[in-house]
Amino acid sequence: MSPIPNPSERAASAAAVPAGVTLSDPFWSDYTERVQNVVIPYQYEALHDRAPGAEPSGAVRNFRIAAGQAEGAFVGWVFQDSDVAKWLEAVGYSLQIRRDAELERRADELIDLIGAAQQPDGYLNTYFTIKEPGKRWTNLTDCHELYCAGHMIEAAVAYYEATGKDKLLRIMQRMIDHVETVFGPEEGKLRGYDGHQEIELALVKLYKLTGEERYLKLAAFFINERGREPNFLREEWKSRGRRGHFEPNVRQNLDLSYFQAHKPVREQSEAVGHAVRAVYMYTAMADLARLTDDEQLRQACIRLWHNVTRTQMYVIGGIGSTHHGEAFTFDYDLPNDTVYAETCAAIGLIFFAQRMLLLEPKSEYADVMERALYNNVLGSMAQDGKHYFYVNPLEVWPQACAHNPGKHHVKSERQAWFGCACCPPNVARLLTSLGRYIYTQHGDTLYTNLYIGSELSAELGGAQVRIKQQAALPWSGDVSFEIAADRAGEFALGLRVPSWSPDMTAAVNGEPVSFSREDLEHGYLILRREWADGDVVTVSLRMSTVLVYADARVRADAHKAAIQRGPLVYCAESIDNGEPISSLRLPQTAVFSERGADDLPGGAIAVETQALRSVTVSPDAGEEKAALYGTVPPRLEPVRLTAVPYYLWGNRGTGEMAVWLTTSD
Amino acid sequence: MSPIPNPSERAASAAAVPAGVTLSDPFWSDYTERVQNVVIPYQYEALHDRAPGAEPSGAVRNFRIAAGQAEGAFVGWVFQDSDVAKWLEAVGYSLQIRRDAELERRADELIDLIGAAQQPDGYLNTYFTIKEPGKRWTNLTDCHELYCAGHMIEAAVAYYEATGKDKLLRIMQRMIDHVETVFGPEEGKLRGYDGHQEIELALVKLYKLTGEERYLKLAAFFINERGREPNFLREEWKSRGRRGHFEPNVRQNLDLSYFQAHKPVREQSEAVGHAVRAVYMYTAMADLARLTDDEQLRQACIRLWHNVTRTQMYVIGGIGSTHHGEAFTFDYDLPNDTVYAETCAAIGLIFFAQRMLLLEPKSEYADVMERALYNNVLGSMAQDGKHYFYVNPLEVWPQACAHNPGKHHVKSERQAWFGCACCPPNVARLLTSLGRYIYTQHGDTLYTNLYIGSELSAELGGAQVRIKQQAALPWSGDVSFEIAADRAGEFALGLRVPSWSPDMTAAVNGEPVSFSREDLEHGYLILRREWADGDVVTVSLRMSTVLVYADARVRADAHKAAIQRGPLVYCAESIDNGEPISSLRLPQTAVFSERGADDLPGGAIAVETQALRSVTVSPDAGEEKAALYGTVPPRLEPVRLTAVPYYLWGNRGTGEMAVWLTTSD
Repeated sequence: MSPIPNPSERAASAAAVPAGVTLSDPFWSDYTERVQNVVIPYQYEALHDRAPGAEPSGAVRNFRIAAGQAEGAFVGWVFQDSDVAKWLEAVGYSLQIRRDAELERRADELIDLIGAAQQPDGYLNTYFTIKEPGKRWTNLTDCHELYCAGHMIEAAVAYYEATGKDKLLRIMQRMIDHVETVFGPEEGKLRGYDGHQEIELALVKLYKLTGEERYLKLAAFFINERGREPNFLREEWKSRGRRGHFEPNVRQNLDLSYFQAHKPVREQSEAVGHAVRAVYMYTAMADLARLTDDEQLRQACIRLWHNVTRTQMYVIGGIGSTHHGEAFTFDYDLPNDTVYAETCAAIGLIFFAQRMLLLEPKSEYADVMERALYNNVLGSMAQDGKHYFYVNPLEVWPQACAHNPGKHHVKSERQAWFGCACCPPNVARLLTSLGRYIYTQHGDTLYTNLYIGSELSAELGGAQVRIKQQAALPWSGDVSFEIAADRAGEFALGLRVPSWSPDMTAAVNGEPVSFSREDLEHGYLILRREWADGDVVTVSLRMSTVLVYADARVRADAHKAAIQRGPLVYCAESIDNGEPISSLRLPQTAVFSERGADDLPGGAIAVETQALRSVTVSPDAGEEKAALYGTVPPRLEPVRLTAVPYYLWGNRGTGEMAVWLTTSD
Repeated sequence: MSPIPNPSERAASAAAVPAGVTLSDPFWSDYTERVQNVVIPYQYEALHDRAPGAEPSGAVRNFRIAAGQAEGAFVGWVFQDSDVAKWLEAVGYSLQIRRDAELERRADELIDLIGAAQQPDGYLNTYFTIKEPGKRWTNLTDCHELYCAGHMIEAAVAYYEATGKDKLLRIMQRMIDHVETVFGPEEGKLRGYDGHQEIELALVKLYKLTGEERYLKLAAFFINERGREPNFLREEWKSRGRRGHFEPNVRQNLDLSYFQAHKPVREQSEAVGHAVRAVYMYTAMADLARLTDDEQLRQACIRLWHNVTRTQMYVIGGIGSTHHGEAFTFDYDLPNDTVYAETCAAIGLIFFAQRMLLLEPKSEYADVMERALYNNVLGSMAQDGKHYFYVNPLEVWPQACAHNPGKHHVKSERQAWFGCACCPPNVARLLTSLGRYIYTQHGDTLYTNLYIGSELSAELGGAQVRIKQQAALPWSGDVSFEIAADRAGEFALGLRVPSWSPDMTAAVNGEPVSFSREDLEHGYLILRREWADGDVVTVSLRMSTVLVYADARVRADAHKAAIQRGPLVYCAESIDNGEPISSLRLPQTAVFSERGADDLPGGAIAVETQALRSVTVSPDAGEEKAALYGTVPPRLEPVRLTAVPYYLWGNRGTGEMAVWLTTSD
């Protein structure tokens, strides 16, 4: 077993996420606290099969059975262990924000249980331990063994960072010791990889914490083997008689692109297959490109980033255009009503964006991160923290969700905990670690990627610097940075100019900074100077309500516009605008007024404008069921249109909703 | 065995389809001849597994095996026999138009084979005879035994009417004798019905031909039992261990509404489930309502008609909004891209419309019949008669058909003969019997439902009358009726005022008929007078190109218009208009010019108008992959828009197509 070096002893990498960031934001701190006070306790109950109204998870019970502390059958998905891991990871981040003895006790107890469930050879997976002990590592395609290990590693790292307790870390290092006896380029080992990428990015975290190169090497091995010929997944599938785990009686049709294993990762240019797997893989690829200085891998990351964000991403930052395989489809195919846009995929896109920001500081990565965070991810959670969207649609007709089978996957109301409970704990771990997404540091330049109130401590320009960011997004665009330093030091502050506020202004100690678009470096305003204690930088972002148009190749959004205010995408709901929402027509010249929305959580701003409603004119329109088609053009009636932030949709009962509205010219 | 009375000996029913109508139309005769010269011979080869490039049908071979004339295993669907039946039915109609000794020889040979495959007890079905002889009548839900019998009855009736040969009729009467020993209200018999309705309408035809009440009674039995409690299909399913025919290893989820067996038919008001089954059932219900003077059934038919045509019908006359179960969804749910609109369902809707016209002469039934015929049905067949659409979409993006699994069922090009070959022979039997859809007779009023060139012989007002209709639809709206009569007689000619030509004019012997909308009887202009030999009625229909709008509750068509000229719905294709088709914007004030379309079959008229194209304006639009979303409104460029008849779409290679185009105001 290798010793765990003190993180501060390790060489600072050229690019890094500053570790010492504490959130303190009027908008986001609420969410973090909701996760701490509601989501984590609720999910703890759910994991223990005690959440009222939710399907029993079986996750903790599986560990008890594997540990010999209970009897019974394995319950849940083959990847059920990962729910426990994601909860522990969220707990790790939560404890980094605020120590909580009772929560820590619960986590320690669970970690003890995990240790007890670990097999003598280091193997850890309750499904195979309980149910198919002889079949370990025989179905990497479907069975998520390395995926579950990856999540548990992420939990171990987060928990160690929070508490200094290394028990889970040691457990997972033993597991990886075992994994190394099974996988590798050496004769007799499997040249394989998991069907669901995750361990790759986790191993990078383990490497960064411990400094042990072998973890980085193993991550690179999994990434490099993927898609190579002879194809591991195909050979494995053949040797299983072409049968899968999920429907063992049916011949499995193996689509390698579903697993992003259809070609070597360095040759991939288009995002295909299961969206979460894809972005988890791209995240690890970007990590490896940076840490191993791999230009080919870097180019692949950039190509894939462009493909995802410039041809396959919804305006809410969601990805995955079809529920068939929870997958990407093809360029510009972004149907709003049969959409998938899984919450986990948007979270994975945020991971990918963060790693791209480390690879090269470009504001487009942060723009996407912000878009996915404020819209898709935030919208997935109900205000009560207990109900979630798995699928995040941009257009909802509740009756269609109920009565058109092609839309059964779309729900018009957030659901309690899922049978496949990947999304809620993923939201929890993201929101509790949000401080890690605000800044990236490249040498002595500190890039501000998100305008979120927080305190940062870092070494910059040879000085110990503390930066207190105050922000009131998404409602107001005034931001300030107060610098406290033990001594003056020259370093640079990079301020992102958001795509939605190209006319951002900034001032240092009240003195306006004069700059043009040409002065920006990859979308950041770089303020390099000798900073002194007490310096104050203010930034002003324009929070105006604008219309956004999609590229004409997006057929689904033709002749339509979305409403955006700052980072928030808005939507029209029938509770405010009547039915059908589709009958609204939005003038391109619309001028919006703002108002506090009484029936939405405090502080939320609704926007209003004059618009039109298309009304059927029919000789027999008085009848309940008039002729469906007629030659009389519909009448356009003036109407007051109200739009609310997308992330708050569906919080006032079930109804119609649309992000994209047809414009009038 | 019952004697077959001469049809002319039977009492004339109050309402009837005149039997003696011969098609002679510049537009439709071409299609009929194509069916006779190409489709029927091609389908004959296909049934014999000799059609190049098409999947082997196995249909004839199955009969050989069942007859002991060949060895081997059953091939194809459980309802494969019905393909032979539909071919024979089309042959029957074809021979009524034009005798053909060689075709008749082939049909007789096939009928001999069918006779040889019939079991000693009268049972006829090759699947159960070959494959599961002990399992007859144990799975009515899935196995189509009565369905296949129904189609063979329809064939027998058509073939007898054409040739006077009763061999197939006798075979099917023996089969029904057998069916009567199995099904019925009596103790020990099954109070059941087929999962796929068809035999009900066939039994009505058999009754009308033979005058034997027991056939009508059996049809009524099947209709009346359907959906009653205890539910036959549910009980059968339970007794089969909840397993189905198609996936015997999987627990079957029985959805009774799929079979329209969720409640008694008289209580049904909404069209649900498999669309073809539904309209075949409604057809029989309308038959029975009329023939048994059943007011409750008549009211149910009217309710279901309204539901289908006023809330669930596409503008092309297609029905079935989802491929999941080839089914209806719910009111106003008419997605254009994930549509089903199966060819067979439109044909079934035409059957239903014809029976409703017999029930009560109302032009709305004929309007729908015409809409489905000229658009959905006609569009399903390629000009070569050998390629067909099963699904008839209103919006096609070929890449989406290939790469978005939710649209895999939509094809952008017509396919050669299908594995499940229901549609092509259904088209063949409809087009060869088209003469039966032109007129309906109620007492001494002859209603013209379709303006199609033809000659009719009928007894009207005590005279033997021949009416020669000359028409040049769909291109020109001039129609004439020349009356030849052995003596003068008083009767009425009902002339349908099509919904697309409310300003229709008419003249008798050159003398204009003056009438207002109030003078019409249920949408028909009734000309009642003493008609004499040589009288000529002329009708003029306005063939102008107009925009059609859908009811605002149809979300998919909001802010859009379709182009219609006479009975033809038009569409825009990318071959004429570039890609993406969705970027076109059609002014509501569009003025259309007409032109012959050189690259379309002779006579076809394309229409053109000034329109707009929405072009993305983006700072980085020069790049291949620019930002997906921006705040600069698209530029509207003037463009010449060309639309072609929908029925001809996809005949010039694969490309984008749309029926509904966004309007500009």
